[in-house]
Amino acid sequence: MSGRLAVVGLGPGDPRYLTPDAEAALGDAEALYGYGPYLDRVPARARQSRHPSDNREEGARAVAALRHAAEGARVAVVSGGDPGVFAMASVVLEVAAGDERFAAVPVHVVPGITAAQAVASQAGAPLGHDYVVLSLSDRLKPWDVIARRLQAAAAGDFAIAIYNPASRSRRQQLADARDLLLAHRDPGTPVVVGRAVGTPNQQVTVTTLGELDPEQVDMRCLLIVGSSQTRVLRTAGRPDRVITPRRYPG
Amino acid sequence: MSGRLAVVGLGPGDPRYLTPDAEAALGDAEALYGYGPYLDRVPARARQSRHPSDNREEGARAVAALRHAAEGARVAVVSGGDPGVFAMASVVLEVAAGDERFAAVPVHVVPGITAAQAVASQAGAPLGHDYVVLSLSDRLKPWDVIARRLQAAAAGDFAIAIYNPASRSRRQQLADARDLLLAHRDPGTPVVVGRAVGTPNQQVTVTTLGELDPEQVDMRCLLIVGSSQTRVLRTAGRPDRVITPRRYPG
Repeated sequence: MSGRLAVVGLGPGDPRYLTPDAEAALGDAEALYGYGPYLDRVPARARQSRHPSDNREEGARAVAALRHAAEGARVAVVSGGDPGVFAMASVVLEVAAGDERFAAVPVHVVPGITAAQAVASQAGAPLGHDYVVLSLSDRLKPWDVIARRLQAAAAGDFAIAIYNPASRSRRQQLADARDLLLAHRDPGTPVVVGRAVGTPNQQVTVTTLGELDPEQVDMRCLLIVGSSQTRVLRTAGRPDRVITPRRYPG
Repeated sequence: MSGRLAVVGLGPGDPRYLTPDAEAALGDAEALYGYGPYLDRVPARARQSRHPSDNREEGARAVAALRHAAEGARVAVVSGGDPGVFAMASVVLEVAAGDERFAAVPVHVVPGITAAQAVASQAGAPLGHDYVVLSLSDRLKPWDVIARRLQAAAAGDFAIAIYNPASRSRRQQLADARDLLLAHRDPGTPVVVGRAVGTPNQQVTVTTLGELDPEQVDMRCLLIVGSSQTRVLRTAGRPDRVITPRRYPG
C-alpha cells in the first residue's frame, strides 16, 4: 500500500510564508482535505481531488482523510498556520491511533508559520522572550481552565499570544480576560491586535491593556499582550515597534 | 538612501523549512550578518559580503549591521529558527530605536519555523493545545524568574517548550526544573527530547518527566514537557507519537 497522509501547515495566508516542505507535500498529494477557506488558498492542480468541510467537523474530516489514505491515496490535510498548534495534527494522530483500519497509514506533520509569529513579526518582536500561547475559545475547554491559565500567565509575567479572542457568538471572554490580566498587569502594558495578518486585508494596531476595546476584536484577530518588560519603541516617521527584550532585570 | 535591514529567520536548519519570504530577503541582501554557524547555512552568492560574529555578541552585531545599512546597504541579519523568538529581532529594533544614526533605517522582521515547531512536528503534536515557551538559560535573566515561570507553567497545566535546557557550563538548571515540575506533575508525563532537529543529525526521543536524565541533554536540545492531557500514542511498527488534544475535559 502506497497511501500516506501529510498534515500540512499553510502559514498565515500569503504564499511567501509557505515552506518548500509544505509546497512539496501539497504537490505530492492526490487528495486535499480541509476547512473550505484554507483549501481555497491552495492553487488547483490536475488530477488532485479536493474535499472541503466545515470548521467544526475536524473529527469527521480526519476519518475521511485517513480512510482515503488507507485505500492507497497520497492525502494532504491542510491547516492554516501550523497544524500542530490548535489545529488538525493532534486530531488526525488521535483518530489514526484509535482505529485499526488506519494503523498502516504513515502520518507526517509539516509545520508552518503561525498567526502568532506573523503578527509578532509585523509588530516588531513582542514574543522575544518567554511567552504563553493560549486559545480563548471555550468551545473545547471550560472557561475555568482558561481563567486558570490566564492567572498563571499573569503570575509568570509571560507575554501572551491569544488565539480565538472572540467570535460573533463569543463576545464576553476577551473583556473578562482583559479584566483578569488588569488585576496583575499595568494598564499601560502594550497590546498588539493583528487582524487577518498575512492576507491583503492585514491590519496591525498597537494599544494598551487598559485601552483595549473588545468590541474592536473579531474572529480574524490574534492578540499579543506584553509582559512587564514589553516596550513600545517610537521613532519619528516609522510605525511603532513592540519588543520584549531578551534580558530580564534582577 | 536605499539602505535597509531585514532580520531573517532561517528555520531549524534544513532548507525545506526556509520560507520564500526569507529566501527573497537573503537573495536581496548585499551583506549578511549573524552567528557564524547560522551564516554557514546560507549558500554563498556573488557580490554579497559575510560578517560572522560570536554567539554572545548580539549587541555589537546589531550595531555593525545597522551602521552598514545606514551607509546605504541592503543588509540581512540571520537567526536560526524565528528571529522574533529568543533571537536577534528585539536586539536590532532596540539598538535602532536608541541611536539616532539609525533612525532612518527601515527594519523588517521575517519569521521562520522555530525549533519548538520542528521538534513538535517530528514527535506528533505535543503543542496542540495551550503552551508555554521558556528559555532555561540564566545568562540574561535571574534563576528566580525562571523558577517563578516554571511554577506558573505548572500551575496553569501548560505544555512547555524548553529552549536552552543545558550547555557545557549549565548542568544544574534542567535537574532543578525537572524537580520543580515533578512537584506538580505526574512522573509519567510525556517529555520529548529533540536534538539537532532539522539537521542530518536529528534525534527525537520520548521519555517521561520521572525518567528524564539531564545528563543526556546538551545545548543542541529542545525539550517539550507535556501537560496533564498529553498522551503517547503507540501503534505497532510505528514510532511513538505524542499529542496534546485540543479538547480539555471538564
